[in-house]
Amino acid sequence: MASPKGANAREDDEQLSNSNFNVDYIIHYKVPKNERIEAEAGYVQLIEALTTVGLASEVRPGDDSSILVFVKMASETLLRQQVFRARLQDWLQGVRTAGPGADLSGALMEEPVSEAERLRLIYLAITKPKNEGGAGITPKSGQWKYVDSVFPLHDRHFNREWMKRLSTKYLLNQDDLDEIRNKFGESVALYFAFVQSYFRFLVFPAAFGFGAWLLLGRFSFLYALASCLWSVVFFEFWKKKEVDLAVQWGVRGVSKIQHPRPQFKFDHETEDVVTGEPIKVYSPFKRLRTQLLQVPFTIACIVVLGGFIVMCNSLEIFINEVYSGPFKTYLPYLPTILLVTVLPAFSSVLTNFAKKLTEMENYANIDTHHAALVQKEFVLNFITSYMPLAFTAFVYLPFGHLLTPYLHIWGKLAQGLTFGQKELSVQEFQINPARITGQMFYCTVTAQIVNFATEAIVPYVKHKVMTQAKEQGILGKAAKVGASDAKEEAAFLRRVRRETELEIYDVTTDYREMVIQFGYLSLYSVAWPLAGCSFLINNWVELRSDAFKIASGSRRPIPWRADSIGPWLNALGFLSWLGSLTSSAIVFLCRDGADGSRGAASNVQAWGLLLTILLAEHFYLVVQIAVRFLMDKIDSPGLQRERKERFNMKKRILEENLGENAALAASVAPGIEMSEKLTQSALREEARRAEQGSVEDMFWQRQQGMAGTIEAGRTLISQVRGTPPKDT
Amino acid sequence: MASPKGANAREDDEQLSNSNFNVDYIIHYKVPKNERIEAEAGYVQLIEALTTVGLASEVRPGDDSSILVFVKMASETLLRQQVFRARLQDWLQGVRTAGPGADLSGALMEEPVSEAERLRLIYLAITKPKNEGGAGITPKSGQWKYVDSVFPLHDRHFNREWMKRLSTKYLLNQDDLDEIRNKFGESVALYFAFVQSYFRFLVFPAAFGFGAWLLLGRFSFLYALASCLWSVVFFEFWKKKEVDLAVQWGVRGVSKIQHPRPQFKFDHETEDVVTGEPIKVYSPFKRLRTQLLQVPFTIACIVVLGGFIVMCNSLEIFINEVYSGPFKTYLPYLPTILLVTVLPAFSSVLTNFAKKLTEMENYANIDTHHAALVQKEFVLNFITSYMPLAFTAFVYLPFGHLLTPYLHIWGKLAQGLTFGQKELSVQEFQINPARITGQMFYCTVTAQIVNFATEAIVPYVKHKVMTQAKEQGILGKAAKVGASDAKEEAAFLRRVRRETELEIYDVTTDYREMVIQFGYLSLYSVAWPLAGCSFLINNWVELRSDAFKIASGSRRPIPWRADSIGPWLNALGFLSWLGSLTSSAIVFLCRDGADGSRGAASNVQAWGLLLTILLAEHFYLVVQIAVRFLMDKIDSPGLQRERKERFNMKKRILEENLGENAALAASVAPGIEMSEKLTQSALREEARRAEQGSVEDMFWQRQQGMAGTIEAGRTLISQVRGTPPKDT
Repeated sequence: MASPKGANAREDDEQLSNSNFNVDYIIHYKVPKNERIEAEAGYVQLIEALTTVGLASEVRPGDDSSILVFVKMASETLLRQQVFRARLQDWLQGVRTAGPGADLSGALMEEPVSEAERLRLIYLAITKPKNEGGAGITPKSGQWKYVDSVFPLHDRHFNREWMKRLSTKYLLNQDDLDEIRNKFGESVALYFAFVQSYFRFLVFPAAFGFGAWLLLGRFSFLYALASCLWSVVFFEFWKKKEVDLAVQWGVRGVSKIQHPRPQFKFDHETEDVVTGEPIKVYSPFKRLRTQLLQVPFTIACIVVLGGFIVMCNSLEIFINEVYSGPFKTYLPYLPTILLVTVLPAFSSVLTNFAKKLTEMENYANIDTHHAALVQKEFVLNFITSYMPLAFTAFVYLPFGHLLTPYLHIWGKLAQGLTFGQKELSVQEFQINPARITGQMFYCTVTAQIVNFATEAIVPYVKHKVMTQAKEQGILGKAAKVGASDAKEEAAFLRRVRRETELEIYDVTTDYREMVIQFGYLSLYSVAWPLAGCSFLINNWVELRSDAFKIASGSRRPIPWRADSIGPWLNALGFLSWLGSLTSSAIVFLCRDGADGSRGAASNVQAWGLLLTILLAEHFYLVVQIAVRFLMDKIDSPGLQRERKERFNMKKRILEENLGENAALAASVAPGIEMSEKLTQSALREEARRAEQGSVEDMFWQRQQGMAGTIEAGRTLISQVRGTPPKDT
Repeated sequence: MASPKGANAREDDEQLSNSNFNVDYIIHYKVPKNERIEAEAGYVQLIEALTTVGLASEVRPGDDSSILVFVKMASETLLRQQVFRARLQDWLQGVRTAGPGADLSGALMEEPVSEAERLRLIYLAITKPKNEGGAGITPKSGQWKYVDSVFPLHDRHFNREWMKRLSTKYLLNQDDLDEIRNKFGESVALYFAFVQSYFRFLVFPAAFGFGAWLLLGRFSFLYALASCLWSVVFFEFWKKKEVDLAVQWGVRGVSKIQHPRPQFKFDHETEDVVTGEPIKVYSPFKRLRTQLLQVPFTIACIVVLGGFIVMCNSLEIFINEVYSGPFKTYLPYLPTILLVTVLPAFSSVLTNFAKKLTEMENYANIDTHHAALVQKEFVLNFITSYMPLAFTAFVYLPFGHLLTPYLHIWGKLAQGLTFGQKELSVQEFQINPARITGQMFYCTVTAQIVNFATEAIVPYVKHKVMTQAKEQGILGKAAKVGASDAKEEAAFLRRVRRETELEIYDVTTDYREMVIQFGYLSLYSVAWPLAGCSFLINNWVELRSDAFKIASGSRRPIPWRADSIGPWLNALGFLSWLGSLTSSAIVFLCRDGADGSRGAASNVQAWGLLLTILLAEHFYLVVQIAVRFLMDKIDSPGLQRERKERFNMKKRILEENLGENAALAASVAPGIEMSEKLTQSALREEARRAEQGSVEDMFWQRQQGMAGTIEAGRTLISQVRGTPPKDT
């Protein structure tokens, strides 16, 4: 334990170090040793560009080959103008229901500028092109190639409080999400909202999964139906929820605002037929041609990754269940080692290929580019994550006995390679129904724990060790860094230097993890119903470790906005649909084989399988329609807010208009007396024209005004022949 | 032939009779002979209510127990106010992109009031509740029970021109649709647009249907795939097209404006949490309980109608293909007679039941009520239309040989009933593969012709004969009607009296016909590929006969607005989906039996059938996704118009705002010089505060302004150690 005095000193240090010195952004500017002159010229341009858009800057030494530029808005007035213009733009683009009135300070009182909004606008001021009123600084490209990164500083005090609160709370509430939104922007907040909703929903599969595990065992139709129903409800719930959150946070529709991609190459420019603005055009047919490359790409992924996975799996089966020769103790690790070492290599080659392919597809907007990339990566993830289980569920368990001859290929191979002509000792092959449970356990428990370690703990420890080493001069060169810092700034600068070395937080990675997890639940949990329980526990930790990663393991993210989880929504829908197929198929194929007493495939009839799948899929589709119908009926805070905003706007405008048109309005429902006069005068005017004797005008002159018409009508009614009304 | 003189006289008469005497609406007011006093009181209230909202009225005798009230807007100013208020409301409800400016006459110049808009607004003025500024006249209910109908008069001149133009044109173009919209409102125009689009699209199934009939014969997989593809493309096309039309006609979103249903009964009133307005609430659970009655209702429909149809069909098969006893010539008509007489009776009982059920479901809005009713009627139509074919395709053709014992029940029955113990003479039963073709021919040709006759020709002839008879005093009592008419009005009044007797046009009936036709094509045309050709010809006539029906066979419809074909869209989607299943199943089941050479069911394997259906359905789903994706990429005139309106509004508002905030805007991108000053002054202010010595403020004071930062940075950069840049 540290002595009280030491603790106090550290606390003071921390206190000072917590302050961000009003700095909004850090620009980490690299000065390569051999390009000092170019770097200097770029630096001058940088400061000039920043000043032009009203940003104040200070400079301090970075590490031995970089400097740190500190940026803040020069005055609050400038910031307010930015806020006003941004909100006006939002309104015009349909993101806000009501436009900002002329009364700016009133609007700022009503809806204060959150830290996220402030940081986002300043980031845009730094990076937007010059013709759109920004400084046009694009890190690492072209003129700004020495600008290594532009990032905001962590709010350490908040981060510490936040971590404390998260670790003592069971559930996040709306206030917690709003807080995340105000600090890290809607994009990150939406991720937390997603994990939170998913976590809450996991209670159901955890509960009925546990029940099924106790009472029904594996491969239960009832569990498959419940799981299918659950995944539909969750998917539809989230679709509604994300709209709701977007409305509450005032960002609904931001995904429609298209941010042009700087790397986009266009064929020719043309004029928009409507607005006359120039548009850059890239032939959609050319793009389609490139997109068609996705077909061979997907096939390649399936062949390479799938083939490798099937190979390793069959090898593993051979070693574990057939082989009984020498090295029996160590050989079982061989397939795992192969998978762990070779698969990531394949994956990363294919990922790079996916990136190149997406580049070649040459999208005009950042969002479409990102979605296209995510889609391809999802294919890769899909194969690497679900293929081993698919092999076990659809090949090994039902048709295992047919596999024996193929398994012996491994034996032959081993014989040929290593043991010469000696006969390999084998045991009789028996299908091991526990295999899929073991695999599911690995995927849902072991893998999650390993993942947690590599994702949250390792980078943190690594970073701690590295900075300690640097500061204590172990890594030679860095010793002098910070030597010339002013005393009162030293701690702050040290912290800033540390933050420049952190990794960039990418919410996509976290989404991927959750979606792949959802896939395990939807596709295969019927083989191990406890998966829901495992995920419930995992995700409680996951949410906190993600928060920790953001707060301590990475640079503070740029607080981007988002109104949806974007391409992941499609992935969720796809997995939920596919789950209805795989679950029912697994149940049908493995139900009998589950107790190991008889061969699984003996009873399998193709038509039974097809009928099961057909019924399951239509159960899914019908449930989907029903759930959508019901969800539509439910009111929600976001929709209420939207209605309220619309109502207020409507009221305001109606009042304005009625004010102007008060006289008009009064005369529309003028009461009989006045109306009568009005009608009379209108008719009289016509009568004047009627002196020329038009038949049409004559028609309307027969009865003078209301009284005339009533009188004439009475006469006509009295002429209706009939028995006189009976007196009673 | 009439003599020239007679023809001339009639022409003069027609000329005068073409004029509508500026009348906007006719109120047909019944005066029952025994309730003259009540009717008189009601009549006075009627005229007063009309006058209150600024409507002028005249009265003339109707037939022997009714009077005719002629209504028009008293003045153009009043109409303009109505137009202004209505357009303002539309804008507030999101139907219009831009609100009407203060400059009303300018707006009317830019977008003149069409006849449909005028008539709609006047109709609303007559019928809207008093608290919403209308006269509150609701025909046939409560206080207004003597008001038989409120309807506008036909524009005879236009109608004649219109019929002439339609009959000489092959296709309607956008101008024709716009014309219909301006005369009869968007609701009718949308129907014509739908039939027109459907007609154009029919060219494809007609062409590949003809090709398939020539080259592939019936039950071709290729035709089934093409038909499935076509139906998806058409469905997706129309979904896009109707949005497009709605935007072009400025009615997008009108379906969201909910018109309260007067018959709605509420449990209690509550306040809207947002607006504070009172809302009438009816428990959705109560409604759901009533809605659940749809399940037994549907089962009852299937059992009653389906059972009856199956009975008649099997009887027909028995008589035609098994029976060979006495009365063989006449007996085949028996099932048809049964179907034609008993089925409509069943249908109408069930339709009434559907109406009652919908009433009981107690919807709050007219639209939801209508949609619920349409849905139920669609179930009835679905069964009566498609059941006979389903029986043939899925029972008779593939499993016919298994039916024989059941068919002989008829024989036994007949024997028991009529012929005592005498053995019935039967021939050997053989499946007749031409049966489905014959049925399809009946459904797609005969039925369409019969339908055309009953729908368009019969009512017209009936009406002509009736009025002739009435006028010539054949029907006794009516002789005196019109005797007291002023000479110049006589022809007009005669025409008005005739129009009061016409039927009300209901666009729902016409939609139903088209949707059911689409169903034949999608579900069964694989059995008779020529169906497309037949429908192509039929629909050319259909469109014109519908126009004729509107113009001559019914009262002029109230020009309601609509932005979608509403519940029929779901019906189309459902039929298109179901078509993918039935077509593939029919092909699979009947393919071998089609040539009659071998038993159809011999080869049928359940798994093959299921696989076919599964593949066909997924083909459908994939095609749907692909077509939607592609359709999304296509620009359209409606979307362009919307973009244009938004762009103009945006430009206007930006200009206004930039005008106000010119000074602000200038200072946002102020150029280096000014910025520098600004930044300096902001910093100086901070410096003043910094005299208290805050560390944060000190931090920003180290470097004075831009120049200071640049200088400090240069120094830092020069300190970066490294090899000096090489001179080249």
